[in-house]
Amino acid sequence: MFVTVFLLLVALCSQMGNGDGGEGAQRPGHVSVIIVGGTGDLAKKYLWQGFFELYINRVSGGNTFSFYGGGLSPAEKATPVLFEILKAVSCSKDVSPERCALLKEQFLRLSQYRQLKTQEDYQDLAKHIKKQLQEEGMTEAGRLFYLSVPAFTYADIAEKINSSCRSANGAWLKVVLEKPFGHDFRSAQVLASQLGSSLKDEEMYRIDHYLGKQVVSNILPFRIKNRKFLDPIWNKHHIERVEVVLKETLDVKGRIPFYDQYGVIRDVMQNHLTEVMMMLTIKLPMNVSSREEVLQNKLQIFSSLLPLGKNQAVIGQYRAYKTEVQQELNKTKDHVSLTPTFAAVLAHIDEARYEGVPILLISGKMLDERVGYARVLFKSDIFCLQNHNSVHCKPKQIVFYFGHGSLKDPAILVSKNLFKPAVTENEWKEVTEHPDVSVLGLPISDYYVQTPIEQREAYAQLISHIFAGRKNNFISTENLLASWALWTPLLSSLASSFPRIYPGGADNGGLLDILLKGKDISYNSRAVIISPDQMGGSSTNGFQVMQGKFRSADMVSAWAEELVERLAADIQEAAEAAVREEGVFHLALSGGSTPLALFHRLSQHHFSFPWRRTHVWMVDERCVPLTELESNFRSLHDHLLQHVRIPYYNIHPMPVQLNQRLCVEEDGGALMYERELGKSVNDTSFHFVMLGVGYDGHTASLFPGGKANELNESLVVLTESPVKPHQRMSLTFGAINRARRVAFLVMGKGKHELITQLSRVKDNPDKWPITAVKPVKGRLVWYIDYDALIG
Amino acid sequence: MFVTVFLLLVALCSQMGNGDGGEGAQRPGHVSVIIVGGTGDLAKKYLWQGFFELYINRVSGGNTFSFYGGGLSPAEKATPVLFEILKAVSCSKDVSPERCALLKEQFLRLSQYRQLKTQEDYQDLAKHIKKQLQEEGMTEAGRLFYLSVPAFTYADIAEKINSSCRSANGAWLKVVLEKPFGHDFRSAQVLASQLGSSLKDEEMYRIDHYLGKQVVSNILPFRIKNRKFLDPIWNKHHIERVEVVLKETLDVKGRIPFYDQYGVIRDVMQNHLTEVMMMLTIKLPMNVSSREEVLQNKLQIFSSLLPLGKNQAVIGQYRAYKTEVQQELNKTKDHVSLTPTFAAVLAHIDEARYEGVPILLISGKMLDERVGYARVLFKSDIFCLQNHNSVHCKPKQIVFYFGHGSLKDPAILVSKNLFKPAVTENEWKEVTEHPDVSVLGLPISDYYVQTPIEQREAYAQLISHIFAGRKNNFISTENLLASWALWTPLLSSLASSFPRIYPGGADNGGLLDILLKGKDISYNSRAVIISPDQMGGSSTNGFQVMQGKFRSADMVSAWAEELVERLAADIQEAAEAAVREEGVFHLALSGGSTPLALFHRLSQHHFSFPWRRTHVWMVDERCVPLTELESNFRSLHDHLLQHVRIPYYNIHPMPVQLNQRLCVEEDGGALMYERELGKSVNDTSFHFVMLGVGYDGHTASLFPGGKANELNESLVVLTESPVKPHQRMSLTFGAINRARRVAFLVMGKGKHELITQLSRVKDNPDKWPITAVKPVKGRLVWYIDYDALIG
Repeated sequence: MFVTVFLLLVALCSQMGNGDGGEGAQRPGHVSVIIVGGTGDLAKKYLWQGFFELYINRVSGGNTFSFYGGGLSPAEKATPVLFEILKAVSCSKDVSPERCALLKEQFLRLSQYRQLKTQEDYQDLAKHIKKQLQEEGMTEAGRLFYLSVPAFTYADIAEKINSSCRSANGAWLKVVLEKPFGHDFRSAQVLASQLGSSLKDEEMYRIDHYLGKQVVSNILPFRIKNRKFLDPIWNKHHIERVEVVLKETLDVKGRIPFYDQYGVIRDVMQNHLTEVMMMLTIKLPMNVSSREEVLQNKLQIFSSLLPLGKNQAVIGQYRAYKTEVQQELNKTKDHVSLTPTFAAVLAHIDEARYEGVPILLISGKMLDERVGYARVLFKSDIFCLQNHNSVHCKPKQIVFYFGHGSLKDPAILVSKNLFKPAVTENEWKEVTEHPDVSVLGLPISDYYVQTPIEQREAYAQLISHIFAGRKNNFISTENLLASWALWTPLLSSLASSFPRIYPGGADNGGLLDILLKGKDISYNSRAVIISPDQMGGSSTNGFQVMQGKFRSADMVSAWAEELVERLAADIQEAAEAAVREEGVFHLALSGGSTPLALFHRLSQHHFSFPWRRTHVWMVDERCVPLTELESNFRSLHDHLLQHVRIPYYNIHPMPVQLNQRLCVEEDGGALMYERELGKSVNDTSFHFVMLGVGYDGHTASLFPGGKANELNESLVVLTESPVKPHQRMSLTFGAINRARRVAFLVMGKGKHELITQLSRVKDNPDKWPITAVKPVKGRLVWYIDYDALIG
Repeated sequence: MFVTVFLLLVALCSQMGNGDGGEGAQRPGHVSVIIVGGTGDLAKKYLWQGFFELYINRVSGGNTFSFYGGGLSPAEKATPVLFEILKAVSCSKDVSPERCALLKEQFLRLSQYRQLKTQEDYQDLAKHIKKQLQEEGMTEAGRLFYLSVPAFTYADIAEKINSSCRSANGAWLKVVLEKPFGHDFRSAQVLASQLGSSLKDEEMYRIDHYLGKQVVSNILPFRIKNRKFLDPIWNKHHIERVEVVLKETLDVKGRIPFYDQYGVIRDVMQNHLTEVMMMLTIKLPMNVSSREEVLQNKLQIFSSLLPLGKNQAVIGQYRAYKTEVQQELNKTKDHVSLTPTFAAVLAHIDEARYEGVPILLISGKMLDERVGYARVLFKSDIFCLQNHNSVHCKPKQIVFYFGHGSLKDPAILVSKNLFKPAVTENEWKEVTEHPDVSVLGLPISDYYVQTPIEQREAYAQLISHIFAGRKNNFISTENLLASWALWTPLLSSLASSFPRIYPGGADNGGLLDILLKGKDISYNSRAVIISPDQMGGSSTNGFQVMQGKFRSADMVSAWAEELVERLAADIQEAAEAAVREEGVFHLALSGGSTPLALFHRLSQHHFSFPWRRTHVWMVDERCVPLTELESNFRSLHDHLLQHVRIPYYNIHPMPVQLNQRLCVEEDGGALMYERELGKSVNDTSFHFVMLGVGYDGHTASLFPGGKANELNESLVVLTESPVKPHQRMSLTFGAINRARRVAFLVMGKGKHELITQLSRVKDNPDKWPITAVKPVKGRLVWYIDYDALIG
């Protein structure tokens, strides 16, 4: 009941405020704005200007203001600095010079510098505000703290604000934070929880200034306004690829102490580029102003994004960076920083709508031009029989142009052969007169172009949103953590990768061109400057697949990736031979994490695998419902079966759950599987059985000392595992040894000791179950990677 | 045993003959060549020249020859015509003029005209050959009949050859046939069986002269030679699309009596273009010379090709055609021929490797240029960061250029940014000096180009293959019928379609440009000249979806296609609502053929359908194994479930087969399904039940007079159908009426009478089971198409 009423209220509020939903937005009274770090770069460049614009817009709307620039310096030193900054603010063109001069004078009068260093400083500030309110007989509307300071100080300042600067009379508190919001998932989580102990979620405004850019904030409205045209083509059948690109010409000289800790991925990809990708791909909300709905739709995309690993990224570093680091961080000449100043990342959203659509996120310093855009390139769906130069034969694309570059202004461009887009009235206008430029391969005359009627700085936009309480344009904790959850594994996997060194500017030539290879990405050119550290390690190029013997059976060994390729190829070969000879292929697969790479390889690269004729059986299963993540079948299902077109009837999960209970002897699940096997598999002899090996020498679910290990008459049995979940169902050695081909797959350094032991021990099935695997008529092959073999 | 030995022999033979496998290829002795239709156009243009070349090549190889031109005209009339033709044959450049003159003289001396009209004529020919052999004391190698006559005479001539012209001494007989081989599947089958009664399969050589073109016959060898490069990219992840294009500038004036019966699809698509598509897509044979393996691989592709229907083709007719038809066929001014002189067809191969790759087959008369090519265009897999004009940033494609066009010569072109292809030595050469031309969007300098060292006419090539018995380059009966099986349904569906009229030549402009829309195709421009006959009919444009009442429930009505779109959209809406509210959607679906269009719509267009959260249940099932084609589940599986990513656990087939038997009461299948339903479906209340209606008024498997119809306590029961298979399992009215939403889908003129009756009858579940469908709390909607509603 409470919930219903609450929802109703939310709905009402959001309707009343035209969807702004911001508390305090309309509250009249006095507002205190405190920019902590008020004489810093950001404040100087954007924030004071933004607040000046806010002042102009709101001063006649029932609010009065005080502005405070805060900082660590004492007032006598910083005050003149602040006033130099304040004097530089400007009015928009529609304000007359006289009125502007007046407004600036007022603004300067309302502003002052305060040292904000100690708890007492914050207490003094609070006292000052209180006194002023009393003296002037004003009611208070709220207090806005803008933290334009290094992130490591956030928790401390938030704590001080919480304990000293809250208003007693119910006025609102808003605390604005600038990125970085953490360094990875863990630190972001810590920071969020620290801030959470001082501030309520609704009091925090995490700024991503990209969300204040007019083009970026118009992506969703554009998609909604043009949904009639976009709906039919906004999917994998029509989208060739998506690019989100932010190219810069500058270096990071002077900012190295910060930058070297972060690099391009943390600096702009985890936040700006990710947010743009979200705007392009989220499901359209029913209500674009519903913060909750937009958030849920974002989280949906985050949860569908395929994991980003080493193969989904390339990184680079401009040549001079090394020296800059040595100088700014006082390092010696042999110091090497691996921090990337360029990165290209390939993302894929594993949803029916976007399956297989490459999403490229690219950014770098010291490139040939300054430009930011997102491009949705559509597939060529036209065949021009005669005149190949007509407009309708050209590429089709939509470009969200953030600014700079050849076009200079922010704009949204739609190829004329796509559709004529609607324009948001009063805010955007169609432009028909253009300079003679080309944008992303097409002359501008081939596009419909729209631009904002009045260009506004992102910060000014966001400051007005903060004031109005429009939280939609800020990063919620959930959003932030979801983004870090995506990026952190990639950052870890790149931690010891050497970036490609690039000279910078036009000299980069084709050095940073990117090649897409299915779900993987690489540099297009092979001319790499290899660092000596890269020569050894796990480079697979120098090593061939090796063949040999292990425990007197055949052995194939290679680096992990090649080993899996080889095993997958061997399975396909066996499958083709079986289908040729018998029309069907029976494959039994093991659970565990080792085979995942194999499943991936089979589903992503073996297009001609005869799945329609393949039956998939389980080697063993844990006694849990098949839908649980622990289930071997669930893992096989999610990583292989869902990705290939195998008929439903050819899938044979073990019946561990019968009569609403798990692995009860009387329910006869093992016997049932044995019968199914007897019915389908000729002579109950699998064509291929893929096994793993446990640290204790077990295979399938046949453990050391297990009674079942001798039951060679049965084909399927219930067994007990020493680790949870204890109950298992498993093929027996009897079943395994009837197979035509058995493969052991052993990978990873962790298995090295085991492999060493196994190479020495005699057959002893009771102690080393795997030594009981001896196909009667079939062939046994060990697939062992170099890590497991050599250690 | 016999089979094994036979296979062994075939294998041996094929190895011995270096894979040519031709019987008689090496047999020495005298050869009689008879061109029936020896003074016709084809003979004049290509055949005599081809046989002259054969003569030159073989005369010193142990064979002697006689050549006969046969025809219906008496010898005194035709002999001078024949000798005019023979005098025009020419030698290749490497033969000296003196030797050439000598060879021509010999060739003329060995050639004669014979009337071949009656059975006696053929007997006389046989006598003549026998006599000549005796007189000159020659052993006979074989007899080669080349039928260059209208196809309707084939059966008769073959019969005459069979009864009168077989050699008694075991010499070989080869009969060469020119297309058309039938007019559709049925007629091709009839012709094949007629020919089969006179000739053995191995005696017949069906010519598709495209297979004699050097570029076409080199496609497979090229793919094999370059498999190292091609293997990784010859799949859906890399191929953007495939085009097989044959453009002609000529009209068909003078050939109308033939052409108007056939049209462009039968004339060049069913044969030439299809064969090229095969060469591009078949799995590479282990042995390229193995006729059987190549055939099997072709049949594999044929069986994987998605059916071609009206939406996969556009057709055109050049403007003057109409008048030409009226003149040549003596028709009045109001005679309209629907024969297409232009067609574009979109094929898709439903195999993992090529899934979603559009294959365009295009051909027409009176176009802007004469050119034939097959192009494999690869996806742009590169992102050029700075210099967009480098070669490696350009489109990647392989072009098999059959000849003519801007390049003039036959050639294979590979974009330089793809790979440097290997060249078949002795036969092909790389060309590095080119005229300044562009081929398919790229300057020729952007390609690696290879051409045949010596250009040979297709017919000369094929004649030498026939002589050598290389059957690989000819169309086997199975191949032919598989091709007709593909094309015949399309031809039928187009039979009453009006082709778009085009002016011809450069004037066509963009009129014939093609738009690809997923699996469908259309003309790009909408400026169509609509014939009056097209105005009525089933054009959906003029009609909206209509809403109304039927049997006091809601009704939606529209033309079939829109009705299905609407139902699919309604199901998705219900699914989304259910997932939003409960996290899961339970959908029960009926069998039969009516829902297939719905399944197709759902799988091909509803990308955001929440399949992961959807459970699919069966409304009813026939008591046959689930894998049988009759099974409702099988149909659902093949048409829907295999095409969407629905988890295995969410699929709920009815357990009609238990303990190795079907629908036995004691096995408790119905109860088992009821329990499964009870466990998964909240309150056993489906979110959506989709039902059909049978002619007898049954729905689900609840038939008139069925006892089960009153069992409203049970949810699932075994029932009896009046038609086979009699045994069924079905949801009860009890289960159906608990659903939140029930939809009846009724389509087709055949259901009109039923709908009329149903609109009148009172509720009478015993006679009209469907009248028992009355959801207790849910909503019932009838989806009836105009055909069923209006008749």
